Amino acid sequence: MTTATSTVSGRRRRRERVLYQWLADELVSLIQTRTLRSGDRLPSVRAYSRQKRVSLATVLRAYQLLEDRGYLEVRPQSGHYVSAPSGGLAPSPSVPRPSFAKEEVRIADLAWELLARVNDKGMAPFGIATAAPEHYPTRRLSRILTRVIRESGAAGLVYGSPVGHEALLHRLARRARAVGLALRPDELVVTNGCTEAIQLALRALTRPGDVILVESPSYYGFPQTAESLGLRVVEVPTDPETGASLEHLESAIRRTRPRAFLTNPNFQNPLGFAVPDAQKREQVALLARHGVAVVEDDIYGDLYFGESRPAPLKAFDTAGNVILCSSFSKTLAPGYRIGWVAAGRHSERIRRLKLASSIHTTTLAQLAVAEYLSGGGAEHHLRRLRQAFRAQVSDYAHAVARLFPPGTRVSRPQGGHLLWIELGSGADTMALARRALARRIGIVPGRVFSTGDTFGHCFRLNCGFPLRGELERGLETLAGLAR
Amino acid sequence: MTTATSTVSGRRRRRERVLYQWLADELVSLIQTRTLRSGDRLPSVRAYSRQKRVSLATVLRAYQLLEDRGYLEVRPQSGHYVSAPSGGLAPSPSVPRPSFAKEEVRIADLAWELLARVNDKGMAPFGIATAAPEHYPTRRLSRILTRVIRESGAAGLVYGSPVGHEALLHRLARRARAVGLALRPDELVVTNGCTEAIQLALRALTRPGDVILVESPSYYGFPQTAESLGLRVVEVPTDPETGASLEHLESAIRRTRPRAFLTNPNFQNPLGFAVPDAQKREQVALLARHGVAVVEDDIYGDLYFGESRPAPLKAFDTAGNVILCSSFSKTLAPGYRIGWVAAGRHSERIRRLKLASSIHTTTLAQLAVAEYLSGGGAEHHLRRLRQAFRAQVSDYAHAVARLFPPGTRVSRPQGGHLLWIELGSGADTMALARRALARRIGIVPGRVFSTGDTFGHCFRLNCGFPLRGELERGLETLAGLAR
Repeated sequence: MTTATSTVSGRRRRRERVLYQWLADELVSLIQTRTLRSGDRLPSVRAYSRQKRVSLATVLRAYQLLEDRGYLEVRPQSGHYVSAPSGGLAPSPSVPRPSFAKEEVRIADLAWELLARVNDKGMAPFGIATAAPEHYPTRRLSRILTRVIRESGAAGLVYGSPVGHEALLHRLARRARAVGLALRPDELVVTNGCTEAIQLALRALTRPGDVILVESPSYYGFPQTAESLGLRVVEVPTDPETGASLEHLESAIRRTRPRAFLTNPNFQNPLGFAVPDAQKREQVALLARHGVAVVEDDIYGDLYFGESRPAPLKAFDTAGNVILCSSFSKTLAPGYRIGWVAAGRHSERIRRLKLASSIHTTTLAQLAVAEYLSGGGAEHHLRRLRQAFRAQVSDYAHAVARLFPPGTRVSRPQGGHLLWIELGSGADTMALARRALARRIGIVPGRVFSTGDTFGHCFRLNCGFPLRGELERGLETLAGLAR
Repeated sequence: MTTATSTVSGRRRRRERVLYQWLADELVSLIQTRTLRSGDRLPSVRAYSRQKRVSLATVLRAYQLLEDRGYLEVRPQSGHYVSAPSGGLAPSPSVPRPSFAKEEVRIADLAWELLARVNDKGMAPFGIATAAPEHYPTRRLSRILTRVIRESGAAGLVYGSPVGHEALLHRLARRARAVGLALRPDELVVTNGCTEAIQLALRALTRPGDVILVESPSYYGFPQTAESLGLRVVEVPTDPETGASLEHLESAIRRTRPRAFLTNPNFQNPLGFAVPDAQKREQVALLARHGVAVVEDDIYGDLYFGESRPAPLKAFDTAGNVILCSSFSKTLAPGYRIGWVAAGRHSERIRRLKLASSIHTTTLAQLAVAEYLSGGGAEHHLRRLRQAFRAQVSDYAHAVARLFPPGTRVSRPQGGHLLWIELGSGADTMALARRALARRIGIVPGRVFSTGDTFGHCFRLNCGFPLRGELERGLETLAGLAR
């Protein structure tokens, strides 16, 4: 009898835990999508309990959790209110500053050091853009890969097709259709991650000496890859909430006659914005009109915090002018190195370049990903991943607001798992990053996201790992260093 | 009783079969290493039977097999003689012809078409340089990979180190030591096959517009990769049995001031020669003296027909001037895409380029290869592979001599699994390859191995698949088309 009772109460406790967390998540989502705004008063605990048909205790715990995380504040004798946001971002530079790289853009030593230590368990993983291992469907993927090895036999060992395995190509085309993107089966090529996809796209479009445009700030891998191909990188001033404006884009085009715009329109790395649909359409039209190709990095596209997946630029492309690049490195298995490119009218050249670059992509990992995507679990996994990242990003943002010096500004990403932190204008995040590294804390300083000095007081904070225990202390230490 | 007897005689038959084949293999080996030369008389059947302590029938069957394969001929009332070889190769061009690619060197359409059809079971696989699936240790590798997946868990899914997994790096360094090559642990980077290794090496050494030297003919992938980096390719006249002479090399260096020599010194693709050790040493010294780096493709190095593995150029390199590239695509598992590069004093740059090119190489395949190499089976497998390729190359060479028009010349490779066939000077192997492809027979025409027209009457014949049944008929058909 004792056992039965304790089991029932255990179940009740578990259900209780799930309920209050579910409630808290829902409220965070309402705050993030700005349905609830700073200063809004929440329903009383009693009223919300009736409205949601949950116990008073559940509502109370949910409110307390959000208070702890900095989303809510209590005003005595008045109730719970949504906290003031932790500051917007600084405005983007108002004057376009084309920034030609006069000498070779070197891969930032620090970024390299961080990657070399990516599996150092003692490091606080706020640097490299990746997630905690428990976020990946390790067991399921491993089971599938094991079956694939057994069933494919020698087919997994012999040379495969340069464009990729049919099973995966087929699956990629289906997934694209599901987000309103009609890809020709012959425009897809499977690559060694998104970086190879981008590399091939740039090779297909440019010759050494050509100019390409990027956002400012933009992912530090972009200039690295561009430099290795002898390209010059010009930065387009970028609004931290909507991306490159048409005016800035057009001005840069007229001035520098670029061959391509390398862009990250969905949950931009590092800023986290999604370019609004109307602006995407206009960007695509503008670039096509000027004969400038688009290389679109959509690697974070599936990690939206809102209601639905934003469209890639390629969905607005009627001229085959957009080369879409992506991978499963942010959602499934970075270590599998499975990416892909949909190259529109540049397909033929990309297919040939893939052959000249690495012959083909490892077969078994392709088969495993294809098989995984064909199961129902894939969508479920992505839903959970989005929820987890939304909560984590929010946790980090509020912790930064709590811990860092006054005046610190934090981005409001609409997806992904990255935050962009702007310290006071005198701050030197390169020095901060070096001091942090010495304490085994990784961050990526703002300077590597631009060839200029504009972001020397900013840094990127990875929120891919739940913020607790060691990591919470790591963030505190980092905040201490920043003071 | 009946059953027992038939089992015994079955065993005897099997033993008999093994014996005569073993005897035949031994004789082929003596012929290939020129211990037995054309015109030599073999011992009589009776004498050889006594000498080898085998039955008369066994010797007779071995002699008949070799006669069928064209190694031996019977002179009535006189005995068995080693057949005349099927012709040497044409001399290399005597006047150096630097051949600047005036326009982009396009990947040969035909080579592309062949790769796209690499797993088409109905194709006679004489084109792409690969082996029959049964030559790879599929079951063992699959078992190991399955275990690696289970044991590594999430470690196989998360981002890995850009330079490669420690387990494989360690194993590669050990294997290098075994062939007399002392590599610094920090000069190795694991790559997506040998092609990525070469691509990275060229990027580390050159800038767009630079000249690199290659042998003539040379693997068609070299100019493809070079072109995609904006490099100009100059061919050095190449002796079909010893490689590029010092005179030709030096002359090309003085004339074109190249940045690098991209070479394939061990069992060159397509000619199959190994550069003699003394010449290797002199090549390395000459190039270092002129400040020209070496990119060495050693992908066939383990597939020697002689007594021992020839040294790579890097073994003669005292200045860190040689970048050694290789992979397991010709010996273990092309589909795993595991290659590596040892970059000497260019290591730092290669490591960074790897990051900018594809971040890192798929983890699980690295772990599986490392594990496989640590077992004793790896050396046994390589021994069997060498025996098989030696026998197959010999079978193809003799079949070509038997089936193709008089005047056809065949290379005498010292390793690997490729033959270079030279038809009469008027022949057009590009047209032949197209006609062959229409009959589902793959070959690679000579023109893709050079930017000039020198090899328009030659083609490369892959001998990676045992020559029997369908393939024998395929070769007959090809010979018919060549007439």
